[in-house]
Amino acid sequence: MSRIVMKFGGTSVANLDCIRNVARRVKKEVDQGNQVSVFVSAMAGTTDKLVGWVEEISPLHDAREYDTVVSAGEQITSGLLALALQDIGVPARSWLGWQIPFKTNQAHSAAQVEEIEIKALNERLREGTVCVIAGFQGISSDNRITTLGRGGSDTSAVALAAAIGADRCDIYTDVDGVFTADPRIVPSAQKLEKVTYEEMLEMASLGAKVLQTRSVVMAMNHKVRVQVLSSFTDKPGTLLIDEDEIVENKVVSGITFDKNEAQVMLIGVKNNPGIASDVFKRLANENINVDMIIQNETEGGRKTDITFTVAENDATKVEKILNGAENIDFKNLITDMNVAKISVVGVGMRSHAGVAATMFETLADRGINIQVISTSEIKISVLIEAVYTELAVRSLHTAYGLDSK
Amino acid sequence: MSRIVMKFGGTSVANLDCIRNVARRVKKEVDQGNQVSVFVSAMAGTTDKLVGWVEEISPLHDAREYDTVVSAGEQITSGLLALALQDIGVPARSWLGWQIPFKTNQAHSAAQVEEIEIKALNERLREGTVCVIAGFQGISSDNRITTLGRGGSDTSAVALAAAIGADRCDIYTDVDGVFTADPRIVPSAQKLEKVTYEEMLEMASLGAKVLQTRSVVMAMNHKVRVQVLSSFTDKPGTLLIDEDEIVENKVVSGITFDKNEAQVMLIGVKNNPGIASDVFKRLANENINVDMIIQNETEGGRKTDITFTVAENDATKVEKILNGAENIDFKNLITDMNVAKISVVGVGMRSHAGVAATMFETLADRGINIQVISTSEIKISVLIEAVYTELAVRSLHTAYGLDSK
Repeated sequence: MSRIVMKFGGTSVANLDCIRNVARRVKKEVDQGNQVSVFVSAMAGTTDKLVGWVEEISPLHDAREYDTVVSAGEQITSGLLALALQDIGVPARSWLGWQIPFKTNQAHSAAQVEEIEIKALNERLREGTVCVIAGFQGISSDNRITTLGRGGSDTSAVALAAAIGADRCDIYTDVDGVFTADPRIVPSAQKLEKVTYEEMLEMASLGAKVLQTRSVVMAMNHKVRVQVLSSFTDKPGTLLIDEDEIVENKVVSGITFDKNEAQVMLIGVKNNPGIASDVFKRLANENINVDMIIQNETEGGRKTDITFTVAENDATKVEKILNGAENIDFKNLITDMNVAKISVVGVGMRSHAGVAATMFETLADRGINIQVISTSEIKISVLIEAVYTELAVRSLHTAYGLDSK
Repeated sequence: MSRIVMKFGGTSVANLDCIRNVARRVKKEVDQGNQVSVFVSAMAGTTDKLVGWVEEISPLHDAREYDTVVSAGEQITSGLLALALQDIGVPARSWLGWQIPFKTNQAHSAAQVEEIEIKALNERLREGTVCVIAGFQGISSDNRITTLGRGGSDTSAVALAAAIGADRCDIYTDVDGVFTADPRIVPSAQKLEKVTYEEMLEMASLGAKVLQTRSVVMAMNHKVRVQVLSSFTDKPGTLLIDEDEIVENKVVSGITFDKNEAQVMLIGVKNNPGIASDVFKRLANENINVDMIIQNETEGGRKTDITFTVAENDATKVEKILNGAENIDFKNLITDMNVAKISVVGVGMRSHAGVAATMFETLADRGINIQVISTSEIKISVLIEAVYTELAVRSLHTAYGLDSK
């Protein structure tokens, strides 16, 4: 007997046939004597539709009402999956965030999980009932529905897996697992059998949208055995593991890209001490996440150029903030939307020299100019012109020997 | 300052424009200094879609899951209306059944209101916040979502109006009020300025779908001043009043019809004492509502014919029950779906003779055969062949002097 948490994304519950398919997968686990909790997302397209309504009816919407509206999607699928399970003879009941209760803080639409009351769930699991839980939602201390942000169902599932000490947390999606690169761009990309939490974290935050970043952090912190796999095939997926479980140490695990960043260049900034801190504090105050940052001096140190990247849809806001900042004295502000961030990820990098050199050489050979470089222990990212994205990803995939034979 | 409860049906919140229109109507009441609670139904079509999914995925569905799924519709509109109100500067928040809590018994999908906690609502109303409440839903003692049955939002609104001692309960719909007959069939039908609770009750249960029957009973018992009016025009609606408030005593207030009944004839039943009781007890045990009943003896009292009507979609079930009842000995069972019940309603009937005679004469003049007759103090109903429905309604409307000048 194992305790298993399963999570099915929007495409896996897109319609009634898909929901019946999910029910059959859940039944298989039950038939093997496992205690099963299942998280469901909203049917594909539902959350987008609800979010669209909220934004249309009130551009500056109250996040509490946003959460009330959009959480309805998961409510519907949780009830439908419980019914589909009952219909094939599997005892099941649905649970909404407030019924568990799945307690979060009051940061509506991006809430953090605080505590999950597992007593009632545990009783049901022990008596053999499948607990079908609406993902992505919780309840705040003032008794209102909260949501965990887009992709939050992954976080819901991992949080429960940690809380009930699940043996496995299976995240079902519409791809077979985590790949060395996006297979739509690199046909020779290979599925990774295993990937470390750290690598997955870099990949998730770099735009490989298989798992939500927060869910990976949580899995890593609580050592939850997460598996990513497809609900449409029976192939094994990708298992998230600890670094010390690695047997064969590949240098590079994957190549990712992200076209949703914008490059902002502040040219000829008067170089006072604390100028960079002032720029980025202003952006932080407006909840704008800055990703890559470089700064270099010009005019013998009297001036400096500051270049950084932000999410594309924050770019206009950034321009407004900086143009309106009286104490920041600069000559020119240039925003470039036509950029892509290409990243090479791998825990093996730590012990292998020359990974960066290979990257720069490969791109140079293709005539691709590097605009910004940023590195972490297990990742090298570069900013390039967006039109070269596919060429860059494919070339690097080959250069690091990731192509399937 | 008045306390007002407003309720908007599915067509009144069918899309974002409609919801904005509702917000403007609510604002008008707020601007007049009133304390306003608003109940909303699901967007037109949503409940049907959700019910369809539930029935498709599990024909013998668990009513608790049914309620979880279908209550999502009102959740969405309550959040959207709160947002639309905020957007035009009206302080508002949404409330779901479980948040109030709006306590019901455990009769899922047809739950009865037991108690409404009005403390939190009262505080918000006093501080000038509009309480937008998801209609049709409540919470049972085991912490699960219940629904009050189709049209239950009317009942939600009247129940709260009674609980908070509202001065008015305005039920907004897509018609201008209660008419002397369905205007789609009788173009000369007139809107009633006032109608007594008793008349409305007969009309509601006879198929005039303006208000849900249970909501009328509740309004009558708690003397809630209910007004039915259109959310699409600015015309005054129809006010539900007590009989002693009537000034001009019309004999007949309206003509209604119902095509959703089926006539069941049990021919040549062996006439033992208690045979009728046996027949109807069997149907009651299966939750089948019997409407009109007549019985007459044949063969010198040794046999009897029993004729009654049930809802059309119960007819097959009735046949099965009676054909399978060993102790009920009859020659023949005939079910007729092609019938319509035509009713004449009016509190004035009590003090006026000849109302029935006028009805029978009018129908006879048109060559319409009466199959069954049933009467109450303020209503006369007859069952006729369905093809004559429109002719019968129009002729009676004229005969009782209800046509507009």
